[in-house]
Amino acid sequence: MSILVVGSVALDTVETPRGHVREVLGGSATYFSLAASLYSAVRLVAVVGDDFPESGRTVLQERDIDLRGLEVRDGRTFRWVGRYGADLNSAETIETQLNVFADFDPKIPDDYRHTPLVFLANIDPELQLRVLSAVGEPRLTAMDTMNLWISTKRDAVTEVMRSVDIVFLNDAEVRQYARADNLFDAAERVLALGPRAVVIKKGDNGCALLTRDGYFVAPAYPVRSVYDPTGAGDSFAGAFIGHLATEVARHGHGDDAALRRAVLHGCAVASYTVESFSVDRVRALDSRDVERRLDELRSFIRV
Amino acid sequence: MSILVVGSVALDTVETPRGHVREVLGGSATYFSLAASLYSAVRLVAVVGDDFPESGRTVLQERDIDLRGLEVRDGRTFRWVGRYGADLNSAETIETQLNVFADFDPKIPDDYRHTPLVFLANIDPELQLRVLSAVGEPRLTAMDTMNLWISTKRDAVTEVMRSVDIVFLNDAEVRQYARADNLFDAAERVLALGPRAVVIKKGDNGCALLTRDGYFVAPAYPVRSVYDPTGAGDSFAGAFIGHLATEVARHGHGDDAALRRAVLHGCAVASYTVESFSVDRVRALDSRDVERRLDELRSFIRV
Repeated sequence: MSILVVGSVALDTVETPRGHVREVLGGSATYFSLAASLYSAVRLVAVVGDDFPESGRTVLQERDIDLRGLEVRDGRTFRWVGRYGADLNSAETIETQLNVFADFDPKIPDDYRHTPLVFLANIDPELQLRVLSAVGEPRLTAMDTMNLWISTKRDAVTEVMRSVDIVFLNDAEVRQYARADNLFDAAERVLALGPRAVVIKKGDNGCALLTRDGYFVAPAYPVRSVYDPTGAGDSFAGAFIGHLATEVARHGHGDDAALRRAVLHGCAVASYTVESFSVDRVRALDSRDVERRLDELRSFIRV
Repeated sequence: MSILVVGSVALDTVETPRGHVREVLGGSATYFSLAASLYSAVRLVAVVGDDFPESGRTVLQERDIDLRGLEVRDGRTFRWVGRYGADLNSAETIETQLNVFADFDPKIPDDYRHTPLVFLANIDPELQLRVLSAVGEPRLTAMDTMNLWISTKRDAVTEVMRSVDIVFLNDAEVRQYARADNLFDAAERVLALGPRAVVIKKGDNGCALLTRDGYFVAPAYPVRSVYDPTGAGDSFAGAFIGHLATEVARHGHGDDAALRRAVLHGCAVASYTVESFSVDRVRALDSRDVERRLDELRSFIRV
């Protein structure tokens, strides 16, 4: 069961307490795709400039990610420069060069229009809405967003939340969106808009899942050496949706129990992502790596 | 199986986003005792001034807490004035009046010397050591502490950690003590000192338990209306030790599975504590209230 992801492919310059990398492969759609492709076929829609390195394309192709939707435009690829201090849960953005991403107008190849699962990574919510109207009626849709869109395009963000099945946010974003300090209250306000599930990513405090039928809390895997938190949230979503796709394919649906298992897959894969700079660790993962960490995560919540 | 607690009994003046109370019953030993007495017999060792209200004594007596160790001295009772902002996880101390607590020298009544479980609430670690040497060989000992003692009496804190079975800390304290940003690393350094378990309280991010045999993570119960976080940690410890006492009494020991169940009891009771100012909610709890929330907590981590 294929997954369509629309988001960014970027070149990241990142500094963390563990070191520094320059113009390495990054972007929400990149991390999502590499994680989701551990489970399911992935189709990527994004834009890069004519300076995008062949090596970046190779990384995605190694995992059989369908790149027919990766548009190459004249100009420079989207660049992000960021820094993490001792608190690895939040990045300080030093510079954002949108470049060709500034005029991103997602073009959904005809072959992609009936992809059963659609993930709208963090892009302008107006573009997310355009993608939703272009893809027919997918079996399952999910979205991510960020503080910028919540403050500048709140109505469009609301419209996307109303339209999708699963909303991914981090804890600061859900509080910001719902204008509530209490995280549970905030998540309930998002759920009340209509999605089936709200997934709240809390960095090294794990993840919470709220549905109409229940509440689930998963721990973060205790990573000893966090090299670079970039992409943790996107690879979390990739593994979540990737795993969920396999459950939908097998059982015809993804019930609450499947969503809970999907959360654990997300936690497992995200914990690997942060163990290297850029996509180095997530691109090298295999399903045995994931299973090993899943077993540990299950043991952390066993009573 | 009785529990001896040594700590503070105080009059608290507290402001939170939900309101304000003045000179109400508080103190680490108070919250601990009220929670632990839901499960087991509790003996309290603390000091109050001659201004301590009879109503405070009544609250403790209603729960059959043994007050023979509650010394009354000439002078004023320990007072704490604090404020919580929107981030309910950490208090701002506005004023601490130690009063009679400044010269607290815990006197352990002879009858108490063979109490099988001993909890050293947050007091000067040198006093904690003195208590330990006065109580013979309890079946199980546990401690709490605070940032002040970690920074001013680090060696004594270390000595207590080496001497007890269970160390309770909040996430900031364990990082401060271990001089490590990574919470798991920090907890391992404390565990390496010799206790059987390190319990890390993380406010609305729940609780983690680290032992030589495993790692357990429990969610915080999602409280809708937090009135006053004061005493959450002490009532957590009270329910934890109280429940553990019943398991030790029944099975002769408290294995890792028992410690995990004890964490959930702690989370359940602490979640009630914060639903009122002072001890109003925790003093009114019964075991059915706790069971109801335990069932919910178990459902939040079921996969």
